[in-house]
Amino acid sequence: MSRNLEQALFEQLDELVLVDPHTHVDPLKPASQTLADLLGYHYYTELAHSAGLPREFIEQPSVDPRERVRRLIGTLQSIDNTAQLSWLLDIAKFHFDVEIDRLDESNWETLFDVAGQKMAQADWESQVLKRSKIERIFLTNDFDDPLEGFDTYRYIPCLRTDDLVFHLCKSSVLDRLQSSSRVSISCLTDLKNAIAQRFEHFIRSNAKACAISLPPWFTPLNISDGDAEKSLSTLLTLGEDTPWEDKDRMSYWVFWELANNCQRHSLPFDLMIGVNRRVYPNGVYQGQDLYDSRVSLIQYAELFNAFPSVPFPISVLASVTNQELVSYSWIFPNVVCNGHWWYSNTPSFIARDLAARLEAVPRGKIIGYYSDMYKLEFALPKFRMFKRNLASVLATHFVLGLGWSEHRAIKLGKQVLRDNVETVFCC
Amino acid sequence: MSRNLEQALFEQLDELVLVDPHTHVDPLKPASQTLADLLGYHYYTELAHSAGLPREFIEQPSVDPRERVRRLIGTLQSIDNTAQLSWLLDIAKFHFDVEIDRLDESNWETLFDVAGQKMAQADWESQVLKRSKIERIFLTNDFDDPLEGFDTYRYIPCLRTDDLVFHLCKSSVLDRLQSSSRVSISCLTDLKNAIAQRFEHFIRSNAKACAISLPPWFTPLNISDGDAEKSLSTLLTLGEDTPWEDKDRMSYWVFWELANNCQRHSLPFDLMIGVNRRVYPNGVYQGQDLYDSRVSLIQYAELFNAFPSVPFPISVLASVTNQELVSYSWIFPNVVCNGHWWYSNTPSFIARDLAARLEAVPRGKIIGYYSDMYKLEFALPKFRMFKRNLASVLATHFVLGLGWSEHRAIKLGKQVLRDNVETVFCC
Amino acid sequence: MSRNLEQALFEQLDELVLVDPHTHVDPLKPASQTLADLLGYHYYTELAHSAGLPREFIEQPSVDPRERVRRLIGTLQSIDNTAQLSWLLDIAKFHFDVEIDRLDESNWETLFDVAGQKMAQADWESQVLKRSKIERIFLTNDFDDPLEGFDTYRYIPCLRTDDLVFHLCKSSVLDRLQSSSRVSISCLTDLKNAIAQRFEHFIRSNAKACAISLPPWFTPLNISDGDAEKSLSTLLTLGEDTPWEDKDRMSYWVFWELANNCQRHSLPFDLMIGVNRRVYPNGVYQGQDLYDSRVSLIQYAELFNAFPSVPFPISVLASVTNQELVSYSWIFPNVVCNGHWWYSNTPSFIARDLAARLEAVPRGKIIGYYSDMYKLEFALPKFRMFKRNLASVLATHFVLGLGWSEHRAIKLGKQVLRDNVETVFCC
Repeated sequence: MSRNLEQALFEQLDELVLVDPHTHVDPLKPASQTLADLLGYHYYTELAHSAGLPREFIEQPSVDPRERVRRLIGTLQSIDNTAQLSWLLDIAKFHFDVEIDRLDESNWETLFDVAGQKMAQADWESQVLKRSKIERIFLTNDFDDPLEGFDTYRYIPCLRTDDLVFHLCKSSVLDRLQSSSRVSISCLTDLKNAIAQRFEHFIRSNAKACAISLPPWFTPLNISDGDAEKSLSTLLTLGEDTPWEDKDRMSYWVFWELANNCQRHSLPFDLMIGVNRRVYPNGVYQGQDLYDSRVSLIQYAELFNAFPSVPFPISVLASVTNQELVSYSWIFPNVVCNGHWWYSNTPSFIARDLAARLEAVPRGKIIGYYSDMYKLEFALPKFRMFKRNLASVLATHFVLGLGWSEHRAIKLGKQVLRDNVETVFCC
Repeated sequence: MSRNLEQALFEQLDELVLVDPHTHVDPLKPASQTLADLLGYHYYTELAHSAGLPREFIEQPSVDPRERVRRLIGTLQSIDNTAQLSWLLDIAKFHFDVEIDRLDESNWETLFDVAGQKMAQADWESQVLKRSKIERIFLTNDFDDPLEGFDTYRYIPCLRTDDLVFHLCKSSVLDRLQSSSRVSISCLTDLKNAIAQRFEHFIRSNAKACAISLPPWFTPLNISDGDAEKSLSTLLTLGEDTPWEDKDRMSYWVFWELANNCQRHSLPFDLMIGVNRRVYPNGVYQGQDLYDSRVSLIQYAELFNAFPSVPFPISVLASVTNQELVSYSWIFPNVVCNGHWWYSNTPSFIARDLAARLEAVPRGKIIGYYSDMYKLEFALPKFRMFKRNLASVLATHFVLGLGWSEHRAIKLGKQVLRDNVETVFCC
Repeated sequence: MSRNLEQALFEQLDELVLVDPHTHVDPLKPASQTLADLLGYHYYTELAHSAGLPREFIEQPSVDPRERVRRLIGTLQSIDNTAQLSWLLDIAKFHFDVEIDRLDESNWETLFDVAGQKMAQADWESQVLKRSKIERIFLTNDFDDPLEGFDTYRYIPCLRTDDLVFHLCKSSVLDRLQSSSRVSISCLTDLKNAIAQRFEHFIRSNAKACAISLPPWFTPLNISDGDAEKSLSTLLTLGEDTPWEDKDRMSYWVFWELANNCQRHSLPFDLMIGVNRRVYPNGVYQGQDLYDSRVSLIQYAELFNAFPSVPFPISVLASVTNQELVSYSWIFPNVVCNGHWWYSNTPSFIARDLAARLEAVPRGKIIGYYSDMYKLEFALPKFRMFKRNLASVLATHFVLGLGWSEHRAIKLGKQVLRDNVETVFCC
């Protein structure tokens, strides 16, 4: 009975039209053009590399799309157990009408050709969105993105701020900030103005969130302007040679200033907590980052207290931090659970993390899922994976366990999948 | 089959008469008088606050019980997915004979009135205990509690010691210790005598446990009397201005001295490990504490080694510490698993933590559950939630997995639910 | 349906003939001689001790095997809920043809006698291996083991290096190294030569792995030869009185040198991460070690980067580290998931850790299980416990969830259970 119920709930959830609250889609080129764009997703290149394929072979420049795919195909059977590969088979089935139970030497060229023909259709982008039942999509935009040339209702800008917080000492970043904001930066007031200008630019272009990914050691502090002024002065002089104390002080100050701007503009501040960059520097592109799971949300307690009116949708990289996220969302009005991120975005971690959230966090404070995709085709299989897990928790815990009606369970599912995205991000 | 078996086991477990080994019940006013006493439980006020209700609105003084409830009702639908709210519906069903699947504007006044009438019955306390099948109840008593005016067989005193360990520098605490013990404290020997006197007072009044909650950073050390003498002298002079080194030293020394007294009186020492107090100081009453899950039982290794004859029933705040609790209980004869505490007291954490305990800890060293309640009405729904999980593990792992008879599984369940409370606490 | 499917998959997995990639078997005395050898396994003595039996009573010297068993029997009912005790019942059933659902005063003597007769049969070792469907077995050999007197094809040597890394300051260890390698050690070059000689000795004797267990604080560093030379000189002079800085420096240097030798000989380096030794020094033999679960694989990032051609099969002591193991195996080509170790070797931890691995790690990089046994009889029940969990994940996630055929699921199971042992260890 439980499996039939799950299936019934899944089908109802799968009817919903959604907003995807975090992606890396390029609004000027949102969909794929060849199968190589799909197989180029770092999940496949890094798993293929982990399974033994040399990075140089995977990433050799000046190799055409067909050859890029050919080089990966032989290794796909080594990763056919992974959730990630199952996304690809779902894409083949739902987007290309090709039902296969594995992708190998025998069938990849057919798929490559079919995919190429489909993707060449003029309305491919709309087709994909319609099939995926995704109506609107959050982007990830550099602070100096002009945000032009696309429909900002469909593709909602989001101000990504890693560079400002962690790389301000690089002259390239400072230059980008100065030229995009048209503020010449020689003191803290200039920096404040430049940051404020960027927020205004984003707000004018319909931005609905500010976002950042943070390393495990990061513990936001409210640095005084006096101290920051000194560190900024050092940083403007020494650039990347700035001592780490000053770099850290500026990181903390800029981060706090971002929160100030979020408060000013009633903008949610997405925190993606826990990633160490370049742990494996010889890994493939975007396949070099890992983490130290020893991180705690208590590092953010001062921040949550200081900005009670700023919603903080929080993603945690490791499932071990999920219980803290549940507890902090249950206590702090401005802390919100946000999706299942990266290394925690596989079925068994989603299952346990989601169950813990649904049984203890106010229902309006759980943003179910975002795809984190780079190409539109991935929303469908990734959301599908999540909806399977959501249907399972709704069936087991709420309908069978607590005696809820299916209708009531679906209403909770809809709130988590769709309504909360709209209410939290005011979109 | 598995669901029928679970149900059958649950019903048998639900017949057992139990002792509740940890509560905050006031023995002079153990039951509720209005629905506001139930909805005033911090789980509801903090979740309502987290869902958006201002603290000032929830906690406004001089508001009558009916109005206090009215103010919360509108927000309950925002938390109707939580396990905590399901306790309230169970209370309505079992204690008030009101079967509802949600509590809202349409039905709360009826419930308020029905509840009020029932609670006004002279034997309400006994009714609740009988329906809950709870025979005896552990209390949480301040060290200066006179322990008078109630039946200490039914309401078993437990010496709570947070104040002595963490707030001795406050003159109010010192004063209470001096006046309750009738020992004037000017040196370490005085302090020893005062503490000893308090233990004797509690033992005379049938106390069966000493208890304390501990922050994640706490790492008990055996401080020499010489060092403690110096720190006490500073503390007696400077009070709350005592340097933190001396405060910590006194915390460790008092803690160790408590263990000495537990040893002397063969009293179990309940350790509730991992809470940070006042992380969200603007939260509602009792809704301000959170935690840093980076804590390890290795911090207590020296203690466990130093007091082999003292049983340490241990509660951990975060589920991530549960595996350590299992392993330490499996190795140390004096370490005992104790219940599912606070942020880990929701179904999915109970399920996984309990399964891990039952498959690797000697069966006599698992205290299944305590309600932690402030009002008697909560024992029923909270124990019910636990028994559901216990029935599930017994059905799946022991009966279906290992081929145990139902009878044998129930015997294990009974030991965990009842017998171990009696043997560990000698009550 | 799901239970029938699990059973069907289990039976197919149970047909496979396996290689056990990590044990502590003594190849000169691999099987037990009396029931006391089985009940002497630390899992039983430490659990009996934890349940209340005094260490002195359990370990009293000059007590004959029958009496040693008699002393434990009375306590077994206190641990009959544990997975560990279920292994013993499986041994009785499968190796001794004695089907009992508990071992107690009423039946232990019969079992003792039957076991004794069986074990006395000349071909008992072969019988056990055949019934267990174990073909070859990895050993754990001290660095000065002569590796003589046994068939190194069946009993595969593995160079265990804890002594070299952590106890080189003990004169006994240095003496053993000098005499086994025939290198007199007075400088770093000598130490290098001695270590190299030991690797050559092991390689000549068919060794297929180097292995070590590591405490949570260990964070490998590449120490320069210059710094190591100084610390070695101190260590050769002061022995166990060497300052801890020099001891640590030598630990790190020796560890790195082991990795160098593994690279030279293409030998996998088994890392068993996270154990603190002698946390409970009054515990029974081998029942004194516990852990601090606050450990991260990021501590090994420099090592993984420095030795890309060395496979590192990694065991983690606490389940909380499993997600990091999954993620690091998914990114680093040379990191491999290895079995379910010690405190994580109980059904519920295996279930969740295994599911997480199978859904995100390339299938060739998951070594399913090793028995860690001291006596051959334990391979059968321990692998049986694992196969039950493996069958469950294959049934639920792959066949029912992803629509795989049973045949395909079994092929994945076989790779994890057998093939990967052969490919990773080249055996």
